[in-house]
Amino acid sequence: MVDKREPVMDANALMALLHATFKQVADDFTVDDVKANEVTVRLKVGEKHLRPGGTVSGPSMFALADVSAYLVTLAMIGPKALAVTTSCSLDFLRKPAAATDLIAHAQILKLGRQLSVSHILLYSDGHPAPVAQATMTYAIPPAGSKSDMLMA
Amino acid sequence: MVDKREPVMDANALMALLHATFKQVADDFTVDDVKANEVTVRLKVGEKHLRPGGTVSGPSMFALADVSAYLVTLAMIGPKALAVTTSCSLDFLRKPAAATDLIAHAQILKLGRQLSVSHILLYSDGHPAPVAQATMTYAIPPAGSKSDMLMA
Amino acid sequence: MVDKREPVMDANALMALLHATFKQVADDFTVDDVKANEVTVRLKVGEKHLRPGGTVSGPSMFALADVSAYLVTLAMIGPKALAVTTSCSLDFLRKPAAATDLIAHAQILKLGRQLSVSHILLYSDGHPAPVAQATMTYAIPPAGSKSDMLMA
Amino acid sequence: MVDKREPVMDANALMALLHATFKQVADDFTVDDVKANEVTVRLKVGEKHLRPGGTVSGPSMFALADVSAYLVTLAMIGPKALAVTTSCSLDFLRKPAAATDLIAHAQILKLGRQLSVSHILLYSDGHPAPVAQATMTYAIPPAGSKSDMLMA
Repeated sequence: MVDKREPVMDANALMALLHATFKQVADDFTVDDVKANEVTVRLKVGEKHLRPGGTVSGPSMFALADVSAYLVTLAMIGPKALAVTTSCSLDFLRKPAAATDLIAHAQILKLGRQLSVSHILLYSDGHPAPVAQATMTYAIPPAGSKSDMLMA
Repeated sequence: MVDKREPVMDANALMALLHATFKQVADDFTVDDVKANEVTVRLKVGEKHLRPGGTVSGPSMFALADVSAYLVTLAMIGPKALAVTTSCSLDFLRKPAAATDLIAHAQILKLGRQLSVSHILLYSDGHPAPVAQATMTYAIPPAGSKSDMLMA
Repeated sequence: MVDKREPVMDANALMALLHATFKQVADDFTVDDVKANEVTVRLKVGEKHLRPGGTVSGPSMFALADVSAYLVTLAMIGPKALAVTTSCSLDFLRKPAAATDLIAHAQILKLGRQLSVSHILLYSDGHPAPVAQATMTYAIPPAGSKSDMLMA
Repeated sequence: MVDKREPVMDANALMALLHATFKQVADDFTVDDVKANEVTVRLKVGEKHLRPGGTVSGPSMFALADVSAYLVTLAMIGPKALAVTTSCSLDFLRKPAAATDLIAHAQILKLGRQLSVSHILLYSDGHPAPVAQATMTYAIPPAGSKSDMLMA
């Protein structure tokens, strides 16, 4: 899509960052794969993510898309903990399978100095058709700002 | 905005519906006001909605916008419990105030037979500038379908 | 919405800027009103904006929303000609009236150093229900950059 | 993505439909390729699509994304001329190359009875990085409605 760049953080480094920055929710997620411009992230679906009938809730799908966009950005630029979501667009396509993990495939489409833009497809694990698509924009803190220092 | 119609459900009826359909989360919300084409909904912010620093999380803001769009739609058309979100767009504008309730003002812009579209502004309670804006589209189940019967 | 600030450009100054920067399309638009955080812009609908049946085309509605977001941003920050649209979200709500001007009401929701976010409602002139809503994000060039100099 | 279905209209049939339904703009576009769930559409960039500096205008990019979503939907369901765009989300990623055709790759993510949702990437012809991404939702007229008859 964009110039393929090798990631500067691997799955373990991303999980460590997630635990350092969002410890309340880090246990809900696993980074399944990291490659050039892409990450695969799993939402380990539990009781708290479900709605009546066993389907995964909208806020849980949002959370997975958001975390995935954050991780695919940081995989490429390194740990800048205070990158913040500025906007997102979500399409809910199908009802997720009952009580099944969700898998996000997130791809960076633009990695600028100030903004990253990514596209994310969410799947019920083992199912071929996506349950949702999302686009996410992240604001990247300026180099040298305090927010750049968290992992130092 | 659109032809002003009187709501067919009041705040108590909307809260009863929310408890009947989304009992896991209903206690997080209060309907503060209902009028023609508009509802005001409060997220009673607690520990589980917070991120480090005390700010309200993105998924919590999504959840409030989503519930508000659902309630403003049902206020106008009556209890059709299985109306589903089909898409949303969210802009995060400012960091919410620490540990402060969020207030959503949701307004219906279109109420068709198949779709409702609404615009939602989220505020930290008592603050004048919005922390987020959202647009939400709901699919309304056809009249007479099973999903029309939940409250019968 | 946000701190009400007086605009630093009036309707005439905005039209002059539009002619200087987008002369191919400037004649299609009129700035009808400018006030704190808001502008009203008219698309003078002509043959080239129409689809079969006389309805205004989607690209024409996009163009009006885009120009309005640009003008409401510049009204508040002054002439920075190279502000660029980074993202938009559009909901098409109703068929516009045949061969009727479109009126955009654009409101700034956030005016940061790097980004402006606005919400725009489009109406067929004289009709009460909106034909479309849009949210637009503009990237503002850093102060002192070349793009800041166009009108100098 | 979704169940791969063979298209029911080929490139020639899609171009004939475009000329029948949007004759004002049909000459601006070429269908370069049609396969299961995907179409490739070219905007033949001319003077009227350009902004100062030779870049392709935002409304022209919107128009290409919109036409591509329409064509990928009809390729799969056959000629239903009055399918209408209900919403779109656009991210502008890079400045298009000067005076160069734009190529859209549109993919259907959901094809329901009432709605189609697609994802579109736009490229300057011959360049590897996308200039924009779009998501588009189309409302499909009910089977048997008048709008179903145009090509009969």
